[in-house]
Amino acid sequence: MKIERLKGFRDHYPDDMEIRYDFIKKMMDTAISFGYKMIDFPSLESMDLYRLKSGTELVEQTFSFTDKGGREVTMIPEATPSTMRMLTSRKDIKMPARWFSIPKVWRYEEPQEGRYREHIQFNADMFGADSPEADAEIIGLAATILDNLGLSGQYEINVNDRYLMELILRDLGSNNPVDLFPVIDRFKKMDLTDFKKRLLKDLDDDASEKLISLLMNRIDINDVERLLNGYANDVMERVKRLKDTFALTSKYTKSKLNIDLSVVRGLSYYTGIVFEAFDISGELRAILGGGRYDNLSNLFINESIPAVGFAIGDAVIELLLKRNNLWNYKDKRKRYYVVNISSSPEAHIEILNKIRGSGNIAISEVNKRRMQTIIKYAESIKCDFLIIIGDRELSSKKMTIKNLRTQEQAEMNIDDFINNINS
Amino acid sequence: MKIERLKGFRDHYPDDMEIRYDFIKKMMDTAISFGYKMIDFPSLESMDLYRLKSGTELVEQTFSFTDKGGREVTMIPEATPSTMRMLTSRKDIKMPARWFSIPKVWRYEEPQEGRYREHIQFNADMFGADSPEADAEIIGLAATILDNLGLSGQYEINVNDRYLMELILRDLGSNNPVDLFPVIDRFKKMDLTDFKKRLLKDLDDDASEKLISLLMNRIDINDVERLLNGYANDVMERVKRLKDTFALTSKYTKSKLNIDLSVVRGLSYYTGIVFEAFDISGELRAILGGGRYDNLSNLFINESIPAVGFAIGDAVIELLLKRNNLWNYKDKRKRYYVVNISSSPEAHIEILNKIRGSGNIAISEVNKRRMQTIIKYAESIKCDFLIIIGDRELSSKKMTIKNLRTQEQAEMNIDDFINNINS
Repeated sequence: MKIERLKGFRDHYPDDMEIRYDFIKKMMDTAISFGYKMIDFPSLESMDLYRLKSGTELVEQTFSFTDKGGREVTMIPEATPSTMRMLTSRKDIKMPARWFSIPKVWRYEEPQEGRYREHIQFNADMFGADSPEADAEIIGLAATILDNLGLSGQYEINVNDRYLMELILRDLGSNNPVDLFPVIDRFKKMDLTDFKKRLLKDLDDDASEKLISLLMNRIDINDVERLLNGYANDVMERVKRLKDTFALTSKYTKSKLNIDLSVVRGLSYYTGIVFEAFDISGELRAILGGGRYDNLSNLFINESIPAVGFAIGDAVIELLLKRNNLWNYKDKRKRYYVVNISSSPEAHIEILNKIRGSGNIAISEVNKRRMQTIIKYAESIKCDFLIIIGDRELSSKKMTIKNLRTQEQAEMNIDDFINNINS
Repeated sequence: MKIERLKGFRDHYPDDMEIRYDFIKKMMDTAISFGYKMIDFPSLESMDLYRLKSGTELVEQTFSFTDKGGREVTMIPEATPSTMRMLTSRKDIKMPARWFSIPKVWRYEEPQEGRYREHIQFNADMFGADSPEADAEIIGLAATILDNLGLSGQYEINVNDRYLMELILRDLGSNNPVDLFPVIDRFKKMDLTDFKKRLLKDLDDDASEKLISLLMNRIDINDVERLLNGYANDVMERVKRLKDTFALTSKYTKSKLNIDLSVVRGLSYYTGIVFEAFDISGELRAILGGGRYDNLSNLFINESIPAVGFAIGDAVIELLLKRNNLWNYKDKRKRYYVVNISSSPEAHIEILNKIRGSGNIAISEVNKRRMQTIIKYAESIKCDFLIIIGDRELSSKKMTIKNLRTQEQAEMNIDDFINNINS
């Protein structure tokens, strides 16, 4: 009976998984080098955790159900609510706290290229610091991760500031600037006439035109002051912070940073800087996204804990690595295939143990196949060496070793081999 | 609003997670050294995959539901069905195939010490080999993992063979020996009188007594033949294979191996060797368990693919490591805390980058706190060194470095520091 895996889910076979683990390890190591520490949380959470903050749209896109104990639960669609639950449920966390996590997350939405119903999401967050230094570190960590994956020059980071946008919108005459964020978030997807029609519900014609001109193009950080010339003082003060953040961020990475006032991010909890990385071809979905969310903690403990973070999904990274011929992995360990054809069935196991203990890989022939078949198999699973132990070799404490790349073959003293394995 | 995590689920904070990741990494590295390669599969599978093989008991203990598309799905309660689905859905897999996986798995059952509704399960399986060598390698891998975790001498492995048991039960007069496995599986949990009463439904009094005497005690491998003297020839032949397996396994580990004829394992798909590891105090649940299941593939593709494997849960390992004072982790990387008090806001970032690039950890002060507070914080997050960059230092390309363990403090040329960081 053929049972298929579920639509929108993926199997990862060894060749694929080896590369995937390698790039996740690089993300981890980069975060650790910045002082971030790993956390983990349940894959299943109470539905209330999501009702709390994200509005209904996300809740509708979840794998949610009522468990056998009658609890309304959901497979987590993102990491932030669980992370915030963990942060606010202990009082002994030293601030600033730097955390990362690598959960699987699930969304019930239509699968497309680079978008699955299950994916691995790398998250990094800093809590307890609200400064250009903190914002720059988070963007710098995101960029350094991409750089360490070999993607330098392949992406740009588009930055905005939700608070700055609020001030601009207020200055343009909006009474509820936050209500315009979901509209601005759809700017690039909407027809311009429709977009303006929607703006006119909140802004007058002149203000709408002004806003559209600001959203139209990416802006060089050095042009921002000129472009926003004439806006209220609080706007210009906030621009100063953004400039400071850019100056700091540019020391972490050589990648291009743009101001893009149309970037506001879909989730409602952002309060300050927001950013997205895109591949330079512009063909893929955002590679990563994040921002500052200083008020989310209030929903848990009536206390604002400054927070800034970002998330990277594995699917777009995979597309990007493949496109740049970086979808490969070379293990530094040597692979030995060990065959015992002697009359002593246990004679090879000490050699296996020694190779494994040396940090290399030893694979044992367990099927007693013909030597021809064994060699073909050892080559097919990419072994570097074949070791043969026969009675003749054993009687003189020797083994035969064949280099499967050069086909060179030699007899070697077993102790000599073991003692020099890593030299 | 306080939102609790769900009952039976765990949060892992950084100190805990660091140790957990370290022991999982050791398991991975051990499996890799044996030639096993990592796979991954969805956390959600069609319910049909479990109806296929495990009987109803497991299905009742799952987090299962109907998804928004009307599919009956379940959060995976174990790895084997998904692994088998992957193996049998491709025809190009080289045999023997050696795979491992580290999924989270979920069971809806009452939480107790060492048993949660969500846990991380390490799985390793070999496909395409049916021999004492293959069986010994799998038990040897399980033992080597425990040994590499520092648990040598803290556990014993109890081994049985389902096929041998079938032959014994047949020899004792049972017509449906397989039906007795669930009964034998409960031997240690049942009252002896009740147990015998149940046996008498299938066996006569003499046979029941004989069977009970066999189940009563762990048996040394050298006593097995004597104990089973008088049983049918096929029994004795199968004992020979078990003896071969023990001889091979004893070369992988110094840990004690016992024959325990009461070990049959709960899952119905085992066909050959079965084994469990227990801590020597006997207080904890099984540390790991596994066995041979050569017929499971038949349910997918009408072809028998020999298979042998085991699984280790993270919860019992945690209890065991804690009990043996092994619940700790020492990162070899050095931790530097970097403070910029100069008038050049970006002056410290190159130093951060260099430390991070060298494979060590650099944490940046992003809050511009008082030096006293900073030092206390840097110590609390276990930094080794504090680096201070001020205008005076910068003017001569220097920095101040303080060893937070010895309190020694010195000025150092920045380039000298960077060039010698790993020496």
